[in-house]
Amino acid sequence: MGMVGGGKDAFIGAIHRLAANMDGLIELSCGALSINPDIAKESGKELFLPADRTYLSFEEMIEKESKMPEDKRIDFITIVTPNFAHYAPAAMALDNGFNVIVEKPMTFTLQEAKDLKKKLEQSGKTLCLTHTYSGYPMVKQAKAMVAEGAFGKIRKIVVEYSQGWLSRLTEREGNAQASWRTDPKKSGKAGAMGDIGTHAAHLAEYISGLKITKLCADLNVMVEGRALDDDGNVLLKFDNGAAGVLVATQVAAGEENNLKIRIYGEKGGIDWTQQEPNTLIVRWLDQPAQILRAGNNSPGLSSYALQNCRTPGGHPEGYLEAFANIYRNFAHTLMAKLDGKEPTKEMLDFPGIEDGVRGMAFIENVVASGNSNEKWTDFVE
Amino acid sequence: MGMVGGGKDAFIGAIHRLAANMDGLIELSCGALSINPDIAKESGKELFLPADRTYLSFEEMIEKESKMPEDKRIDFITIVTPNFAHYAPAAMALDNGFNVIVEKPMTFTLQEAKDLKKKLEQSGKTLCLTHTYSGYPMVKQAKAMVAEGAFGKIRKIVVEYSQGWLSRLTEREGNAQASWRTDPKKSGKAGAMGDIGTHAAHLAEYISGLKITKLCADLNVMVEGRALDDDGNVLLKFDNGAAGVLVATQVAAGEENNLKIRIYGEKGGIDWTQQEPNTLIVRWLDQPAQILRAGNNSPGLSSYALQNCRTPGGHPEGYLEAFANIYRNFAHTLMAKLDGKEPTKEMLDFPGIEDGVRGMAFIENVVASGNSNEKWTDFVE
Amino acid sequence: MGMVGGGKDAFIGAIHRLAANMDGLIELSCGALSINPDIAKESGKELFLPADRTYLSFEEMIEKESKMPEDKRIDFITIVTPNFAHYAPAAMALDNGFNVIVEKPMTFTLQEAKDLKKKLEQSGKTLCLTHTYSGYPMVKQAKAMVAEGAFGKIRKIVVEYSQGWLSRLTEREGNAQASWRTDPKKSGKAGAMGDIGTHAAHLAEYISGLKITKLCADLNVMVEGRALDDDGNVLLKFDNGAAGVLVATQVAAGEENNLKIRIYGEKGGIDWTQQEPNTLIVRWLDQPAQILRAGNNSPGLSSYALQNCRTPGGHPEGYLEAFANIYRNFAHTLMAKLDGKEPTKEMLDFPGIEDGVRGMAFIENVVASGNSNEKWTDFVE
Amino acid sequence: MGMVGGGKDAFIGAIHRLAANMDGLIELSCGALSINPDIAKESGKELFLPADRTYLSFEEMIEKESKMPEDKRIDFITIVTPNFAHYAPAAMALDNGFNVIVEKPMTFTLQEAKDLKKKLEQSGKTLCLTHTYSGYPMVKQAKAMVAEGAFGKIRKIVVEYSQGWLSRLTEREGNAQASWRTDPKKSGKAGAMGDIGTHAAHLAEYISGLKITKLCADLNVMVEGRALDDDGNVLLKFDNGAAGVLVATQVAAGEENNLKIRIYGEKGGIDWTQQEPNTLIVRWLDQPAQILRAGNNSPGLSSYALQNCRTPGGHPEGYLEAFANIYRNFAHTLMAKLDGKEPTKEMLDFPGIEDGVRGMAFIENVVASGNSNEKWTDFVE
Repeated sequence: MGMVGGGKDAFIGAIHRLAANMDGLIELSCGALSINPDIAKESGKELFLPADRTYLSFEEMIEKESKMPEDKRIDFITIVTPNFAHYAPAAMALDNGFNVIVEKPMTFTLQEAKDLKKKLEQSGKTLCLTHTYSGYPMVKQAKAMVAEGAFGKIRKIVVEYSQGWLSRLTEREGNAQASWRTDPKKSGKAGAMGDIGTHAAHLAEYISGLKITKLCADLNVMVEGRALDDDGNVLLKFDNGAAGVLVATQVAAGEENNLKIRIYGEKGGIDWTQQEPNTLIVRWLDQPAQILRAGNNSPGLSSYALQNCRTPGGHPEGYLEAFANIYRNFAHTLMAKLDGKEPTKEMLDFPGIEDGVRGMAFIENVVASGNSNEKWTDFVE
Repeated sequence: MGMVGGGKDAFIGAIHRLAANMDGLIELSCGALSINPDIAKESGKELFLPADRTYLSFEEMIEKESKMPEDKRIDFITIVTPNFAHYAPAAMALDNGFNVIVEKPMTFTLQEAKDLKKKLEQSGKTLCLTHTYSGYPMVKQAKAMVAEGAFGKIRKIVVEYSQGWLSRLTEREGNAQASWRTDPKKSGKAGAMGDIGTHAAHLAEYISGLKITKLCADLNVMVEGRALDDDGNVLLKFDNGAAGVLVATQVAAGEENNLKIRIYGEKGGIDWTQQEPNTLIVRWLDQPAQILRAGNNSPGLSSYALQNCRTPGGHPEGYLEAFANIYRNFAHTLMAKLDGKEPTKEMLDFPGIEDGVRGMAFIENVVASGNSNEKWTDFVE
Repeated sequence: MGMVGGGKDAFIGAIHRLAANMDGLIELSCGALSINPDIAKESGKELFLPADRTYLSFEEMIEKESKMPEDKRIDFITIVTPNFAHYAPAAMALDNGFNVIVEKPMTFTLQEAKDLKKKLEQSGKTLCLTHTYSGYPMVKQAKAMVAEGAFGKIRKIVVEYSQGWLSRLTEREGNAQASWRTDPKKSGKAGAMGDIGTHAAHLAEYISGLKITKLCADLNVMVEGRALDDDGNVLLKFDNGAAGVLVATQVAAGEENNLKIRIYGEKGGIDWTQQEPNTLIVRWLDQPAQILRAGNNSPGLSSYALQNCRTPGGHPEGYLEAFANIYRNFAHTLMAKLDGKEPTKEMLDFPGIEDGVRGMAFIENVVASGNSNEKWTDFVE
Repeated sequence: MGMVGGGKDAFIGAIHRLAANMDGLIELSCGALSINPDIAKESGKELFLPADRTYLSFEEMIEKESKMPEDKRIDFITIVTPNFAHYAPAAMALDNGFNVIVEKPMTFTLQEAKDLKKKLEQSGKTLCLTHTYSGYPMVKQAKAMVAEGAFGKIRKIVVEYSQGWLSRLTEREGNAQASWRTDPKKSGKAGAMGDIGTHAAHLAEYISGLKITKLCADLNVMVEGRALDDDGNVLLKFDNGAAGVLVATQVAAGEENNLKIRIYGEKGGIDWTQQEPNTLIVRWLDQPAQILRAGNNSPGLSSYALQNCRTPGGHPEGYLEAFANIYRNFAHTLMAKLDGKEPTKEMLDFPGIEDGVRGMAFIENVVASGNSNEKWTDFVE
């Protein structure tokens, strides 16, 4: 694995490395860790990278790595830069025959996402998008139960992602994270909706297997002086007629990272909250609710859930393990392909190019709806 | 107290009697318990009412009671009939000098609500509207903390009321409750929005002290064959610029009576859920969250909360106690007035005519918005 | 109903009146509310008792009431005095043909309890002991599931009752409750073990249907200067070979009234906590856990649970309703007997004389064990 | 790192590797993974170990590694064999100048533990004992708050460790874990008390900073045919006069890995449960309880807690991260020593030889008490 971005003090780069490390399947072999050469070098040293594979730009990295012998060079690159700097390294990597892992949102614009989709199809390579929350076993369990029709037709989805860390004008307080995430030139058209609303929308579509067809958005700037939305509420319609609500806010003072989803069908539904991720409440119309629990030996779980647990029930796995599940499934898929085998459906269960295009379309559409006086805006890709 | 409606097998009438009984301040002295004379008589007998005060119509009850000597006759009437039959007995009671307790929604139409307001002003009497959930001590605590500015300016309100009991076409299965509540001729313009959406809207305004100024509603009939909305999602704007979401649904299969509210201000916020009503989570921007607990000796509570608890912390009080708080505060207000004293502000803390008018306006406006293609509908009274 | 004790400012007397009032079946008709004549009279006035039935002693009350015509006089007396003053009025009431409700612990000594049992048998009357916590519907549900063998043989019971209100020398701070409850002359041989340990022991035996046969107690005085135990931990053996632990403490600083019980059998078990009483977690060896919920329409409940709920699921009932269930079942039993009918098994489900004798024996045995150097003390009645 | 034990299908070996991998500080370089040569080789291959460092016995490994040049050979060995096979490799490793990580309980007998302590002192090396649960940030937070006197004198400790996986005679069903853990020849004198009771005792002493001085144990075999205790309840006395209870059971049908602790002092206390490890409830005598939350930016945390979090609040870390914290602190300590620096007090915060001796003494004493008719057994080391 070669990493683009993620130098010292970057948040998400460190997370990716923890996730990649976890299962002993992936090694960080090289990096273009910062556009600042000093930081790039210093970060490489801290990560025990050899000096000659500590690159100063992604272009240099891809160029040099592609010239290395096949058994020495990296299998994929991981892109953990701010949103505006996703497309270029991803495109170049695909063009040079590398597989790609990229942070969400996948690109800066919907157009870039579509372009990347074409490149990926041409390349025959594999792309993985780190929608972390879909890596949780109980999310996969929820998806499996909906898919097998346990709840009948889905009628209602309520998904919320509440954070409080932008309750002040944090971007003016020297917080690097806040700074780029609230800057339209680096983050894109949307603030909270791009940063966390995309996670919520992805989770809703991932678990339900449905697609958003229409939306009605109320986007707000709650902290004076901020350049992008820090709060939003969105009405949703899905392709089977279900209705829903999506809330994404970064000004919910006192909230940490409170992503929650409830989905109701004719016969029951599910209730999951990211901050207690090992529990899935399953409600039934005429029966007592059940508490399904993560664990590689837990009763009542689907193969998708079981294969994404490392430990028995009661040994809580968390955010890093969910992240690592995406890396692990991606790695197993690459390994199967290298071995000329068909990856199992459980291995292939990681977000990819379609999720990336949907995510960018969500941003475009939710911003369009936010600016519209019409109640409903059709969701177009 | 004389009761209109609430004969055998009625749900809410029995609740009102339990609530009225609880504190030993109020006695059920007479009733016009059903429009069916047999049921009226049988119900009166079951409730130990004297035969000569078991009336066959509210007109008869008000007429005869008003002719009784002052120390014998009832002080107020309680109206627990379906929505369409609220206005007439309330108006006649006020015209005849009786105080009134009435179930919510207050009337069948907004116009009736306004008429009742005028009558009330002319009468000089007291009217109480049983928005039960505002009777919970921790709801009062939340209101008090917002009012004293603990959280700074309020930015966001998320209120949800989810039930699952109408997930099937229950009204065709001989369920009397379902039958009238889904019948526009008895329930009014709205189904779920009238039955439970009004509670959610009231709770949001009651705790926040804000008023809804605009809304954008998506009202749905999820169960085929139903005559009124059984599900709805509404975007809200408040008079201080806060944004919000209101969800009210009766097709959330597996949910019981899940009313929840979160309110966020600049510095923190509150999180309350009706099914665990004795706990109020208070979140702070830069401090650990706190768990405030109901109890007449619990630390950190306002006078409003303390005076609505009967027992020390850890002795859970519930729905009936919340209901009884409304009756008790109303009774204490009447007793103070009878004694020529000024009721305290804690006594006066029960919902009344203004809440009733707001509630009926909410129904009118939410239905109008549901039928509109415009994003925002101004909330007009 | 005539009440002995429970004058103004008494805690438990007020609770009894709330509980008795709730269902409209019982009327407070007279009282000997205090041994202080002024308080007795003032309290009577506050409770709207007629002056001629506001008695100055229980002797006067029982004497005069027993001379009243049968349809006028009270059906039972309720004794809510401190422990040392339970036996005398209970015995006199039985001797004079009144039924009795008495607070727990039933008497001051085990001998008194046995004497009362004999009197009761001779009288043919009904005695009810207010072990409140057995009145909760989900406690009854747990009992029913154990009884029907859902969990196989019971192996383990963990019951805890933690309060924090005696963390300081509260009895010297003018707290009347603390004062008598820590005074051996008024409370008896045991402090925390008598006040709340008896509740815990009762709950364990009530739900499990088992009897304690041996115990090993560590009783402590944690607050210097206190005359009775304020903390204790007890190992238990039951008559089927099950093992258990009972914790009762009043110095768990920050705890309110945290009574919890878990019972495990071969195939699963139950987990209940009084502070969230409407939920019963049911665990299974090879299946996901279930969440059973109180409610008169809730799925999966036994007749014992259903008949002790007043409201549908999601309308929380609490401590006062649990208390009122005991009063209601007692009242229904009396009414059935008056009507010459056999009370149903659900009506008869309230604690009585056997529970009272067991409770007093628990106090005797737990104190004996606390003073012993032997590991095990046989539980003798 | 070289690993002794932990071949394919071993539970705890895989956990150790995940934990060691996580932070990119430690590399698995060699192993003596099984006493079965085929399994040893196959396991080595699966873990990408070079063939020449895939050893067939720990003796071979230590011998050969100690002859390698210093910059090539391992820094420490990790022992993850069953209990009876801890001492020999640990002793030999220390004798040959390697640092050691060893699973708990540290040895097979108390005598071995004391011997190992001597060897360690002579060697000048570092030994780490993987009492995982002390690696959780909120456990460290609890310890820090007790240490700084936030709660005054500690009065009461209740610690429970409940599992249900031995509710049947699982050791006869081909479960390898169950098989050795219930076999006195491999596991030692105690079953549940050795396997999980030691964790509970360690947690109690670790957080409270107190030492158990006396205990009174009731050890049980609940499943017929089992050779060691599968259930136990223990009364505890601590060196400051505090009292406590320890419950450890593996027949709590339906429980997963439910380790919980509550500690109460004069002014408040803590409540932590391993299955939701990122939350610490802090109760106060006269103030509302607080919810402290794990996170490297969470308010109100000590340096010990903060430095053991990898992610911001709301990104749950779990069992593997707690385990990894022990590895990371151990690794940082070794690295500091290699650099000739003094490790910080936060680095040194991992369990070591003293904890190992205490753990073995706990097993000896708890078994002795279980066999005694005396109430109290002095805790002797």
